[in-house]
Amino acid sequence: MTQHSAIDPAVMQQRKAYYDKIGSRKLAPLWEVLHALVIPQPKSACQPALWRYDELRDDIMEAGRLITAKEAERRVLILENPGMPGQSRITTSLYAGLQLILPGEVAPAHRHTQSALRFIVEGNGAYTAVDGEKTIMREGDFVITPSWTWHDHGNDSDHPMVWMDGLDIPLVQALDCSFMERLPEDSQPLARPTGDALARYGAGLLPVDHEVRTPTSPVFNYPYSRTREALETMRRADEWDPCHGLKLQYVNPATGQSAMPTIGTYMQLLPKGFTGEAYRSSDATVFSVVEGKGHTMVGEGSTAERFDWGRRDTFVIPSWVPHRHHAPDGDAVLFSFSDRPVQKVLGLWRESRGNR
Amino acid sequence: MTQHSAIDPAVMQQRKAYYDKIGSRKLAPLWEVLHALVIPQPKSACQPALWRYDELRDDIMEAGRLITAKEAERRVLILENPGMPGQSRITTSLYAGLQLILPGEVAPAHRHTQSALRFIVEGNGAYTAVDGEKTIMREGDFVITPSWTWHDHGNDSDHPMVWMDGLDIPLVQALDCSFMERLPEDSQPLARPTGDALARYGAGLLPVDHEVRTPTSPVFNYPYSRTREALETMRRADEWDPCHGLKLQYVNPATGQSAMPTIGTYMQLLPKGFTGEAYRSSDATVFSVVEGKGHTMVGEGSTAERFDWGRRDTFVIPSWVPHRHHAPDGDAVLFSFSDRPVQKVLGLWRESRGNR
Amino acid sequence: MTQHSAIDPAVMQQRKAYYDKIGSRKLAPLWEVLHALVIPQPKSACQPALWRYDELRDDIMEAGRLITAKEAERRVLILENPGMPGQSRITTSLYAGLQLILPGEVAPAHRHTQSALRFIVEGNGAYTAVDGEKTIMREGDFVITPSWTWHDHGNDSDHPMVWMDGLDIPLVQALDCSFMERLPEDSQPLARPTGDALARYGAGLLPVDHEVRTPTSPVFNYPYSRTREALETMRRADEWDPCHGLKLQYVNPATGQSAMPTIGTYMQLLPKGFTGEAYRSSDATVFSVVEGKGHTMVGEGSTAERFDWGRRDTFVIPSWVPHRHHAPDGDAVLFSFSDRPVQKVLGLWRESRGNR
Amino acid sequence: MTQHSAIDPAVMQQRKAYYDKIGSRKLAPLWEVLHALVIPQPKSACQPALWRYDELRDDIMEAGRLITAKEAERRVLILENPGMPGQSRITTSLYAGLQLILPGEVAPAHRHTQSALRFIVEGNGAYTAVDGEKTIMREGDFVITPSWTWHDHGNDSDHPMVWMDGLDIPLVQALDCSFMERLPEDSQPLARPTGDALARYGAGLLPVDHEVRTPTSPVFNYPYSRTREALETMRRADEWDPCHGLKLQYVNPATGQSAMPTIGTYMQLLPKGFTGEAYRSSDATVFSVVEGKGHTMVGEGSTAERFDWGRRDTFVIPSWVPHRHHAPDGDAVLFSFSDRPVQKVLGLWRESRGNR
Repeated sequence: MTQHSAIDPAVMQQRKAYYDKIGSRKLAPLWEVLHALVIPQPKSACQPALWRYDELRDDIMEAGRLITAKEAERRVLILENPGMPGQSRITTSLYAGLQLILPGEVAPAHRHTQSALRFIVEGNGAYTAVDGEKTIMREGDFVITPSWTWHDHGNDSDHPMVWMDGLDIPLVQALDCSFMERLPEDSQPLARPTGDALARYGAGLLPVDHEVRTPTSPVFNYPYSRTREALETMRRADEWDPCHGLKLQYVNPATGQSAMPTIGTYMQLLPKGFTGEAYRSSDATVFSVVEGKGHTMVGEGSTAERFDWGRRDTFVIPSWVPHRHHAPDGDAVLFSFSDRPVQKVLGLWRESRGNR
Repeated sequence: MTQHSAIDPAVMQQRKAYYDKIGSRKLAPLWEVLHALVIPQPKSACQPALWRYDELRDDIMEAGRLITAKEAERRVLILENPGMPGQSRITTSLYAGLQLILPGEVAPAHRHTQSALRFIVEGNGAYTAVDGEKTIMREGDFVITPSWTWHDHGNDSDHPMVWMDGLDIPLVQALDCSFMERLPEDSQPLARPTGDALARYGAGLLPVDHEVRTPTSPVFNYPYSRTREALETMRRADEWDPCHGLKLQYVNPATGQSAMPTIGTYMQLLPKGFTGEAYRSSDATVFSVVEGKGHTMVGEGSTAERFDWGRRDTFVIPSWVPHRHHAPDGDAVLFSFSDRPVQKVLGLWRESRGNR
Repeated sequence: MTQHSAIDPAVMQQRKAYYDKIGSRKLAPLWEVLHALVIPQPKSACQPALWRYDELRDDIMEAGRLITAKEAERRVLILENPGMPGQSRITTSLYAGLQLILPGEVAPAHRHTQSALRFIVEGNGAYTAVDGEKTIMREGDFVITPSWTWHDHGNDSDHPMVWMDGLDIPLVQALDCSFMERLPEDSQPLARPTGDALARYGAGLLPVDHEVRTPTSPVFNYPYSRTREALETMRRADEWDPCHGLKLQYVNPATGQSAMPTIGTYMQLLPKGFTGEAYRSSDATVFSVVEGKGHTMVGEGSTAERFDWGRRDTFVIPSWVPHRHHAPDGDAVLFSFSDRPVQKVLGLWRESRGNR
Repeated sequence: MTQHSAIDPAVMQQRKAYYDKIGSRKLAPLWEVLHALVIPQPKSACQPALWRYDELRDDIMEAGRLITAKEAERRVLILENPGMPGQSRITTSLYAGLQLILPGEVAPAHRHTQSALRFIVEGNGAYTAVDGEKTIMREGDFVITPSWTWHDHGNDSDHPMVWMDGLDIPLVQALDCSFMERLPEDSQPLARPTGDALARYGAGLLPVDHEVRTPTSPVFNYPYSRTREALETMRRADEWDPCHGLKLQYVNPATGQSAMPTIGTYMQLLPKGFTGEAYRSSDATVFSVVEGKGHTMVGEGSTAERFDWGRRDTFVIPSWVPHRHHAPDGDAVLFSFSDRPVQKVLGLWRESRGNR
C-alpha cells in the first residue's frame, strides 16, 4: 500500500485530482484505504468496559419512573460501548442492555429477525412468553426469544425484575435483513402449558422422527438451577482449564450447536483461588457475573486494566484482547455471550492461549 | 423374470446344464433368483413374537445356577426369533437378550465394534462402567455401551438384576466388521465420578468448543425418572398421535441424532383408553413393557394375532407388518428399539399409517 | 416506542436530563432508538447503482499510469455505493472493486481472513496463484482466493487485465476478526501444476477418504467455458424461472454448499425475449454482465429506476428492493454475488416473488 | 465365554437339558455362541476370488442365446463368492454380476429400494434411462440407478454390451426393507434431454437454492473420459500413495458424500512400476480392471494368493485381508466398490497399512 512519506508532492496532487474526478463516478482508490480495511489483527473502536451494577441500579429504577414498559415497548438501558458512542452496541456485532419490568407491567408482543437472549440479573417471577408458551424466570436463568418468534414479557411478581438483553442487532444491520411485526394485543395467546418445551426437547429425548427446521433451540428457558447443578457435579480439580476454569456452552438439543445461530452463550465456574492464564479470541465477549467476585486483567503491559467485578456486574472484552480471570476469594460463576458461532460457521474464528 | 410354467422342458434342461457348467466358474443366473432377492415389499423369515416375563423368569434364574457371569462372560438368554432359529437374532438386523447378574457378580470388561443398549427390566443398584465412569442402574433406565468403548457390569446390590440387551450383531455380521478385545482385569479403572457424563452433556450444555468425534452419545445413562417426568409434563389430550400416543426418541445431545448410530431407541406413553390406529414401518421393532398392560393387534385379516402384554414383557413386530396398540385399562409405557437410524441415513426407511 | 408528539415538554426535559446523566455511565435509553434499530423491513443507506464499463474504462487505465500494482499492493477502484460514501462498500456487508493489472506486473502475495472472488471482466492470460497453484484467468472465469490462503496475481500476457473483486470486508469488520500477513517475496513458491485442483476436486470425484477441514471450495477457478456449456446444455423453454431465467450457484464440490461461506456466487442466463417477474430478497446483490444487453427495472411505482446494462457493466440491487430483469434483444448472461449463504446459515434469509 | 474342555460332563449334560427346555420358549444361551457372534476381527465366509473376463465371456454370450433380456428382466450372471455358494453375493453385504444386453434388446423399467451401479466393461452405445433422462454408456463409464428411481436399459448399438452390476441387495435383505415396482411399459417416458443432469449438477454448480432431498447423487453418469483425464492431470510421482497409487472416490456433488449412500465407488491409477505396500480395511472390496494388467498379492504368509489380472477382470478382497497391488509392466487403472460409506456413517470403518 502507499507510503505517503516517500511520495513526490506533485504525484500526490495528481492523484488527489484523479480521486476527485473518479469520486463523482462512484469510484474510490483502494490503495488509500486498504491498510484500514484489511488489518493485521482485530482493532476496532470497541473498548474494554465494566458496568458495576450497584452504580447503575438507581438509574435503572429511575427509568421505571420516567416511562412505562408499554410506552417504551422495551424499557431498556443500552450498555453502550464507550468506544462507539451513539451506536447502540456493546461490541461491533452485538447489542446489550438492562431491561426493567415492574410489578404488573407488560412488554407487548412483537417478533423480529433479531435473536435475543435474556439473562436474569435481579428478581424472580416475571415471565417471558415465546410462540405460545410462558416461562417463569429466575435469577441466573438463560432465556431465548429466537428469530421471528412472537414474544412478550410480563411481571406478575411483587418486585422489579431486571435482566440483561443480548441481541444481534448490529449484525442484522450489517446484513440489512431486519424485519419486525407487532401483535394487536399486548400478550399473545397461550397454546401449551409452561414447561412443555423443556420436557419435550430438554430431557435427552426429542419427538420421534423430529425434523430440524430452524437453527434455533426449541428449548427457550435453560434454568440456572439445572446449569448450576451440572457445574457442581462435574467440578474436579484435575480438569480446570488454565484459562477458563470449567466452561460450558448452551446448546440446541436438536443439533448440538449453539442455542441460537448468531449468539454463543456460555457459563463458567472459576473455583476459589483460580488464577487464569492469558486468553484471547476473535469474538468480543460480554460477561455477566452470576455469583461471587473476582477480577479480570484486561490487555497487556502498560495499557492493562484491572476490572474488579462482583455479582450482577457486566463487562466486555473486545476481540483479540488478552485477558486473565481471577477468583481469589471464593467460587465465581460467569455467564457470557459473543458472536463465536457466526465466526465458526464462516471459518473465521481464532483463539490463542498464554503468550502465543 | 422367468415364468417357469411357460417354459419348454427342453429349454429348461438346456438351461440347467448351462447353470451347472457356469457354477464351477463361480457364476449363477440372476433370473432364477431375482424374484427372491428384490421383493415387492419386506417379507423376511422374521416373525412376530411375544415373550412373557412371568413365563421366563424361572428360566433366567435357573441360568444363574448353571453358569456364573464370569464363566459366561455375559450370562444372557437370547430372545431368538422363532422364524430364524439358531441365528441368534430377534430381527434380521438386531439381537436381543435378557441378561442376569447376581449379587456380587461381575461381567468382565471388554469392548467391541457392536453397539449395545441395556434396558433395565428388573432390579435396582447394579452398575455398568463405560470408558472410566460407572453408572448405577434402575428399572426403566436406558443405558448404552457404545461401539468400541470398554464396558463391564457388576451387581453390588442384594438382589438379582435383569436387563434387556439390544445389539446390532447381525448388522455388523452383514458388514463383516466385528472387532473385539478383552481387558486383563475384570473391571476397568475409573477415571471420573458417577454422574459426570450426564452433568457434562445432558443438562442442555456441552463443553465449550466441543468437537463431535463419534456418532454416539457421550451420555450413557438416560434415567427413567427423567424420561417419565418428561412424558408426564407434556402429556396433553390434544396431542396424542393416533398410532403412537406420545412417542419420543432418545438422542445424542451433541448432535440431536439417535443416541447410537445403529440402533434407534424410543419411549412412548399410551394413555388410559388409547385405541391405536394401524401403523407399519420398514424397521422391525422390539418392544419392552415398562408400565401397565394392554395389547397389540399384529397383522391384518385372518392372520392377525393379538399380543396381550404386561410389565416386563418383550415383543417384536417385523418390518412392514401393520399393528395397533391398545391400552384399555390404564396408562402404559413402552420402550422400543429398531434399526431406524440406519435405514434413515441410507435413504431406505418408510412408514405408512392407517389403511395406506 | 415513544411517540414524541404526544409527550409533555416537562417530561421531555426531565428525560433529557436523565439521558445526559446516564450517558456518562455508558448507558443510553433504548426507547429513543428502538424504531431505528429493529425496523419493519430492510432499509439501509445502500442505494441501487449502475456502473457502465465504457464510462469507467478510461479511469481504470489512468490508475495504471498513476500507481504501480506493487506500490498499490492491489490497484483497485472501489465501486462505492453512493448511499454510503467513504465506507468502501457496495452493500452493507460486501465490498466490490475493479482491479487492473498491466502486462509484466505483479500484485504481491499476502493472505487475510477476508474471502475474495475475482470475476474476470476484460482480458485473458493473467494468473492468480493460490496456496501453491497457479491458474490462468480468462473472461467470465470465476476465481476465488479463500480466507487465509496465500494469493498473488501476475500478468504474463501482453494486454491489461481487469477483474471485479468481491470481498466480505464489511462483514469481517462487523465481526472484528480481520487478520492479514504478507510474504517477504512478491510471488509464492508453486507446489502443484496448474489444473491440479480442478482435476482433483472438480471432476465428480474427491481424493479417497477426503476430510473436509474448511468450508471453502478446494477448486479455485471455475472456468467460464465450462459454466457456459452447462447453461447451454440445460436451457429449455419449459424450465425458465419466471424471475431468474436459468440460474445456478457455484458450489464447493466437497460439501455442495456455497464456494465460499461468506459470499454466494451465481450465474444466470436470460434467454432472448425474457421478461422477468418482480423478485426481491434480503440479500443485496451485485451483478456483472458477462454477455448481451438488457435492462433491469429497480424499485416500484414512482421511484422505480431503469438500469440499461451491457457487457462488463456492474449494478447493485439493495436488500428487499423489487426488481425485474429483461433481455429483449438477445441472450444475456449475468454473474452475481451476495451474502446469501451467511443469511441462510444464520436463519435470516427471505425472498418474495411477484407482488407478494 | 465357556471353555468346554474344562467343564464337568454332568454339568454339560445338565446345561444341554436346560437348553432344550428353553429352546421351546424361543430362548437360547448366549454363552454358547458369543465367541462366534462377537469376533476379534472380521472373518466371514467371504473368500478372495478372481474372475478372468476371457474365461467368462463365452458363458456370458451363451446366456444371450438361452434367454432374452426381457424374459430375464435382467440377464445377469451373478459373480458368486465361492465361500457363500447359493447366496447371490460377492461379499457379505454386496451383490455383483455381469449383465449382457444385445443389440435391439430392452431391459424393462422397474424401481426398487436397492441402489445399483453399472460399470461398463465391454461395448459402447447402449443406454440407461433414469427418472426421465437417458444416458449413453461407454467403456469405463460409471452409471448409477439410485434407490427408488425408475430405470431401464436398451441397446441401440450394433454389438453386445456387458457391464458389471453392483447392488446392495444383501444389505437391504439384512435390513429387511426391500420394495419393488414395475412399469407397465418396457421403457419409461423421457422428460429431459440427454446430458441435462451432468450439466445441471456436474459442472461445479447447482440450481440456485437447491435443496438436498435424497442422499443420492443427481448426476447418474460419470463418464470415463472425464475421470481418466482428471487422473492424468493430477498424476505426479511425489504424490503416489504407497498402498493405492492415486485413488479417488466418486461423489455426490450436492453433498460431497459418496455418490450413493450404500455403496462407495472408487477409481485408482497404478503407475507403471508401482509396487504397493500392504493394506487392509474392514470393507470387503470388489475391483474391476479398466486398463492395463498387473497382480495383487492377497493374504499373508503361507496362505497368500497371487491374482494376476488384466483388462475387464473382476476380483474381490474380503474384509480385513491384507493385499498389495503391483503394476510392473505399465499403467493400470482399477475401478472398485465396497460398503465403506455405510461403515463410515455408522462409525464402524477401519483400515490399517503396512504391517500394523
